[in-house]
Amino acid sequence: MSHELRVGVIGFGWMGQAHSRSYRALPSRFGDRDITPVLAAVCDPVEERRAEALANFGFAEAHADWRDLIARDDLDIIDITAPNGMHRDLAVAAAESGKHVFCEKPVGLTLADTAAIEAAARQAGVVSGCGYNYRWTPLVQHLKTLIDEGRLGALTHYRGRFFSMYGRDRLGLLSWRFKQDEAGYGSLLDLMCHAVDMALHLAGPITRLTATKETFVKQRPLPKPGEGTHYDRGAPGDPTGPVTNEDYVGALVEFAGGARGTLEVDRSIFGPQSAMAFELNGERGAASWDHETLNQMDLYLPEESPADGYQRVLAGDWLPHHGNFVPGYGNSLGYEDLKGIEAAEFCTAVAEGRPFEPGFGAALRVARVLDAMIRSFDSGGWEDVDLSEPGQDSAGHDSAGHDGAGHDSDGGST
Amino acid sequence: MSHELRVGVIGFGWMGQAHSRSYRALPSRFGDRDITPVLAAVCDPVEERRAEALANFGFAEAHADWRDLIARDDLDIIDITAPNGMHRDLAVAAAESGKHVFCEKPVGLTLADTAAIEAAARQAGVVSGCGYNYRWTPLVQHLKTLIDEGRLGALTHYRGRFFSMYGRDRLGLLSWRFKQDEAGYGSLLDLMCHAVDMALHLAGPITRLTATKETFVKQRPLPKPGEGTHYDRGAPGDPTGPVTNEDYVGALVEFAGGARGTLEVDRSIFGPQSAMAFELNGERGAASWDHETLNQMDLYLPEESPADGYQRVLAGDWLPHHGNFVPGYGNSLGYEDLKGIEAAEFCTAVAEGRPFEPGFGAALRVARVLDAMIRSFDSGGWEDVDLSEPGQDSAGHDSAGHDGAGHDSDGGST
Amino acid sequence: MSHELRVGVIGFGWMGQAHSRSYRALPSRFGDRDITPVLAAVCDPVEERRAEALANFGFAEAHADWRDLIARDDLDIIDITAPNGMHRDLAVAAAESGKHVFCEKPVGLTLADTAAIEAAARQAGVVSGCGYNYRWTPLVQHLKTLIDEGRLGALTHYRGRFFSMYGRDRLGLLSWRFKQDEAGYGSLLDLMCHAVDMALHLAGPITRLTATKETFVKQRPLPKPGEGTHYDRGAPGDPTGPVTNEDYVGALVEFAGGARGTLEVDRSIFGPQSAMAFELNGERGAASWDHETLNQMDLYLPEESPADGYQRVLAGDWLPHHGNFVPGYGNSLGYEDLKGIEAAEFCTAVAEGRPFEPGFGAALRVARVLDAMIRSFDSGGWEDVDLSEPGQDSAGHDSAGHDGAGHDSDGGST
Amino acid sequence: MSHELRVGVIGFGWMGQAHSRSYRALPSRFGDRDITPVLAAVCDPVEERRAEALANFGFAEAHADWRDLIARDDLDIIDITAPNGMHRDLAVAAAESGKHVFCEKPVGLTLADTAAIEAAARQAGVVSGCGYNYRWTPLVQHLKTLIDEGRLGALTHYRGRFFSMYGRDRLGLLSWRFKQDEAGYGSLLDLMCHAVDMALHLAGPITRLTATKETFVKQRPLPKPGEGTHYDRGAPGDPTGPVTNEDYVGALVEFAGGARGTLEVDRSIFGPQSAMAFELNGERGAASWDHETLNQMDLYLPEESPADGYQRVLAGDWLPHHGNFVPGYGNSLGYEDLKGIEAAEFCTAVAEGRPFEPGFGAALRVARVLDAMIRSFDSGGWEDVDLSEPGQDSAGHDSAGHDGAGHDSDGGST
Repeated sequence: MSHELRVGVIGFGWMGQAHSRSYRALPSRFGDRDITPVLAAVCDPVEERRAEALANFGFAEAHADWRDLIARDDLDIIDITAPNGMHRDLAVAAAESGKHVFCEKPVGLTLADTAAIEAAARQAGVVSGCGYNYRWTPLVQHLKTLIDEGRLGALTHYRGRFFSMYGRDRLGLLSWRFKQDEAGYGSLLDLMCHAVDMALHLAGPITRLTATKETFVKQRPLPKPGEGTHYDRGAPGDPTGPVTNEDYVGALVEFAGGARGTLEVDRSIFGPQSAMAFELNGERGAASWDHETLNQMDLYLPEESPADGYQRVLAGDWLPHHGNFVPGYGNSLGYEDLKGIEAAEFCTAVAEGRPFEPGFGAALRVARVLDAMIRSFDSGGWEDVDLSEPGQDSAGHDSAGHDGAGHDSDGGST
Repeated sequence: MSHELRVGVIGFGWMGQAHSRSYRALPSRFGDRDITPVLAAVCDPVEERRAEALANFGFAEAHADWRDLIARDDLDIIDITAPNGMHRDLAVAAAESGKHVFCEKPVGLTLADTAAIEAAARQAGVVSGCGYNYRWTPLVQHLKTLIDEGRLGALTHYRGRFFSMYGRDRLGLLSWRFKQDEAGYGSLLDLMCHAVDMALHLAGPITRLTATKETFVKQRPLPKPGEGTHYDRGAPGDPTGPVTNEDYVGALVEFAGGARGTLEVDRSIFGPQSAMAFELNGERGAASWDHETLNQMDLYLPEESPADGYQRVLAGDWLPHHGNFVPGYGNSLGYEDLKGIEAAEFCTAVAEGRPFEPGFGAALRVARVLDAMIRSFDSGGWEDVDLSEPGQDSAGHDSAGHDGAGHDSDGGST
Repeated sequence: MSHELRVGVIGFGWMGQAHSRSYRALPSRFGDRDITPVLAAVCDPVEERRAEALANFGFAEAHADWRDLIARDDLDIIDITAPNGMHRDLAVAAAESGKHVFCEKPVGLTLADTAAIEAAARQAGVVSGCGYNYRWTPLVQHLKTLIDEGRLGALTHYRGRFFSMYGRDRLGLLSWRFKQDEAGYGSLLDLMCHAVDMALHLAGPITRLTATKETFVKQRPLPKPGEGTHYDRGAPGDPTGPVTNEDYVGALVEFAGGARGTLEVDRSIFGPQSAMAFELNGERGAASWDHETLNQMDLYLPEESPADGYQRVLAGDWLPHHGNFVPGYGNSLGYEDLKGIEAAEFCTAVAEGRPFEPGFGAALRVARVLDAMIRSFDSGGWEDVDLSEPGQDSAGHDSAGHDGAGHDSDGGST
Repeated sequence: MSHELRVGVIGFGWMGQAHSRSYRALPSRFGDRDITPVLAAVCDPVEERRAEALANFGFAEAHADWRDLIARDDLDIIDITAPNGMHRDLAVAAAESGKHVFCEKPVGLTLADTAAIEAAARQAGVVSGCGYNYRWTPLVQHLKTLIDEGRLGALTHYRGRFFSMYGRDRLGLLSWRFKQDEAGYGSLLDLMCHAVDMALHLAGPITRLTATKETFVKQRPLPKPGEGTHYDRGAPGDPTGPVTNEDYVGALVEFAGGARGTLEVDRSIFGPQSAMAFELNGERGAASWDHETLNQMDLYLPEESPADGYQRVLAGDWLPHHGNFVPGYGNSLGYEDLKGIEAAEFCTAVAEGRPFEPGFGAALRVARVLDAMIRSFDSGGWEDVDLSEPGQDSAGHDSAGHDGAGHDSDGGST
């Protein structure tokens, strides 16, 4: 009766585990959807992780090589949370194998990679999904509806940011994340993609922008061979090496609908912890939200209110999906619940054979904005964003990047 | 290798489902504990619920009659989320059958019921647990540590409250919840038990108090036969009947440690949504917390701070249990995660063969405070709280209530 | 053209200075009222203060003895900010001399004193005013209007408090403020009078209550002879003496309109700084306000709002009196501006020959609530509040206290 | 004994009145400074205003023509709050007459005007002052000290804004404020000057920037002849004309100390009321402040704190100047009190014969940043800010603008 969807998960770090928990709990949260994900196979090169997947998550089988997982013919969905540099190979192969593909952000390291991935999924006709989880916050969903209904009027201002502290420790080691030749861009890829997706989602296309970047932590302790993720610390006096990608990106942006604003991200900032946030203003209303306090939103609709002032709206089961997690008013959702909504919506799209939003098309739209930022880093001026249909660049040429990194304006990657 | 614990769940409404999800996800969240709960059996009189438990939660078997579940000899834990009026029969039988017992709050409808349940579990030597889930909020756990370390100094003030809106709709039907002869006390049992548990947990024993109660919504529409939970609404003009238990309870309290304060609860209040909250002050610091914003706490420790003022502390993986749900700083936990912590800690206590706190002893301590409030409703004056060891009342007599409701000062129950 | 009002100020500590600045700036803030207060005379026993009043405030003359000031025949208003223990003598003499009288809170040290003062002013037919300045906060005025219009529905809950930190330093000296035989009651007189006035103003008469008190700082360093206000500090190890009046008062209260609630005050609490605050709930709305953030109020009127949640309303010139101080939205008023409003309204009442609210009648209503609290301290039970017309106690007898302290239930004063 | 300073005020709208009240109350607030401003003369072309100044503010004389006031030989200080377009003529004449000059912001309409005014005051050797009042907020003063002490480490991020709503009403008339040829730039002059001054004050010189502008309300109802300030409203359907200066300015900025950030202002935004605000981050701490809640600041100094999180610091008399207005903790200052501090500090500088900061040098530094923004509007790229000493432009040439508007890149003024 229930629609069984066999899932293979590639990459079993924290994010792969979060995805797996979300699939597994889906029937107990979204029972009325009659969908039962089956954790059929997991892939990770680390043996301990494979063992944990089998023992504690209920996976049926484990692979060390992703080619073995993708080659299976019993899977409906391949879910990719492997390191970013592998996304292009994995996602293209998964799509070409005919499975539906969910890939964590950033889908590609470069515009060319993302375009190639988008093209592969489009040409294969599979459902694609991308992990822009902040969209799924029930209050953000509600705000999107209010905007679409015109309750806030035409938007005039959008200020987006993602300020994270994960790199703020000056003694954090010089891991791959901090090297342009290994990770590509820094906070642009890791944080700005989220900020841009939210901006596009709520305020519509960005047409042009000017951007700048900076590296505040210019040297970091060198990792000792065999060690050295960005969570480890060196000691004062340790030998150091240069950080070669950026901590900070800032941009002035113009939206097709007329709004103006700023987008800023930083991975080494001192103060905010995980401030994926926005403030937006329209001709009749305004709103602000911050992921650090995801269960509340400040909403300003004075024509509909007894006084002038922002109303603090608390999340509750009157919002989309919230009641699938907890009933009533005043009870909070947590971070992972957003991934639970994402998994349920993606599986539902697969089960119903319809496109999922945000899919790789959304990822491509984000990548094009990031590409304009990269061009502006070099030019120092305003750059247009490619708004052409996927598959065609602004001049109407094939932009899938089959000719490789040569056309990549992002010199730092691959 | 992993410690398998076979669980039977009695009652499969929302709370039973939340408990079940928590048991099931335990290995994927607390892998290092090597505990694997097995959802062996469920019991609910409603057939649809039993079917859902089997289909979507992975229960192995389902029973319509709780006696069949308790009679099984393959269970380690019996988890009770059935209606409050059944708790005494269920919990006593479960304990007497030698299983460990977890029971949702309020454990007993009356002091006599709670004492009987506590005595049964104590005499059977089983591990008992009670669903005072707010204690498990990582920030509350952290605050408890700060208090125990003396960082706030001796506490001088405690203001606790639980303001919920579930009864605020004046057209909400006159369900069993609003009748003293069916539900016993109203917000005293449903909300004050949480407020009292938190107060005792953080500020220590309450020695005496004076209390009052009020019913603000004095009439409610009568339910139509066969319908009528408190979530349904009548229409203006429908025939109504009297609400016979209280919406509001307020109390002035004195703590053994010298602190003074107030406890207030209401189920029909207009404004707060689920404000299970407290503010406390000591001779060196202060703190406040509200479940509506469970991932933040205002902490005042001026001697350790650069200025005078409350610090807003955000939850993160530096706190107990938080990292089992989500890594890093600034990522939130949700309501059900508190039940996940509760389940993990209870299972760990069972696996290790040691008492769990809060167990039925904690429930009895809460019930004695509620009993003093009930006595004060009648006397209009200050009443002492029984602080004797469980099994002995303040006069040294057996208080297990084997002689039944006759010794129950709570005239409204059974 | 402009109505000139000649003012004599008795007591020139900080509060007397604030009153004087308010009178002096009145024409430049409230030009359309055509009232010009003239600072005709000041009285203070301290020579330096008299000199400052003449040099920096523009007073025409200064007296060392209050009898000289009251004996003048050229004054319209006598404004009393002298120590509380002198209020009865001063206010009665001022009223009997036919001047209009403004007196800082608490008007009388005891109910008998307050009743005597109220009677003197009433019998003399002068306009009386009392310094319950928090009422004048423009947002509080606005809330009062909303309540009176029924926008919040019938009130059901009121939680008032005044938590101040002025006594929190355990090394603060044992000044007269901390001695029952010199100051009378402690925080009851100093803080609870404000909390009660606000409660009566917004939620109507309190009919009965039960109250308790506590002294948390039980010993304080003895002042050295000739020194020792409560702002000075002793050193650890200094000889100490007992504090004989209370730090804390807490009460459960019932209002004539059906609302229930709590009132709490403390002068030695650790955390709040000057939290003169309330939260109130009605059957259709709710509000909360705190003097620490006097330019904002949280207002809950969900039937008039786009969502469920409190709206943060910022003060601005759309509110009463606000525009007399600063134009536009988003510009704040300060503490002393509330005294400026108070002075303008009092002078306007005097100029127009009509009663001022809050006058000594309001002070008497407050004193009767405090008296019920005092009675409850002793009885441990609920006490009724005298709600009779001024001039008649609840039994219909003359309560003006002409027979002196003998009928004073407050054993600590005079 | 007391230092008497004779003041002439030019312009008696709201701001002139606020200045006058501040001078007049100075001795009663800052008695220990022994300074007595005398309101010797006022000038305003509007007769009613002159009458009010004489009647309600205590001015000795009034003039209709500013030349008469400046020609007086009995004045120490000339205080200019006349319309912006008159500032250059007034300020230059006042300085050349040898009086000390205080001028409201923006000092000049253009860089050339500001440079001419700065040069005139410098060459005359008079003390100059400018109305950047937000600097004087006691909490901002405290933050400045913390930054200077290195408590926050080297600053890395600065986000400043001034979002005001005064133009948000789409039916607000097309007053002079909305016309480039009458007012010059719009929000750049009116709001960005404040945002830039605060940024320079706290984070040091801005070296380069890129900026953009937008007009959101493109048409406004035409005023009827003889009417039409920006506070009046037209009706739907009224004839309209084009708004020719900008509502919005946004900029990316780089500071000499290495910090990056954004500055944004808007006069027609929907949501904020008077959000003159900033957030700044350093390598060891962070802070944020908003004029809408001027008595609180969020301060982040985790190395000095018991936990990670922003501390909400409330203003109190432990801060500079606060205790001159109100004693104790938790009592607020209001908007006009900032002008009171400004007046006291300016008069003190005059009395002591030393420069005042912010004076016209500060105004020139701000004007140069605004000029770089104007250049960037045209170029679309990054523009350097002139950081040369006043009197010399970046090429070492005299930049006082004696050659007039011809060298003014701001085509909209004079």
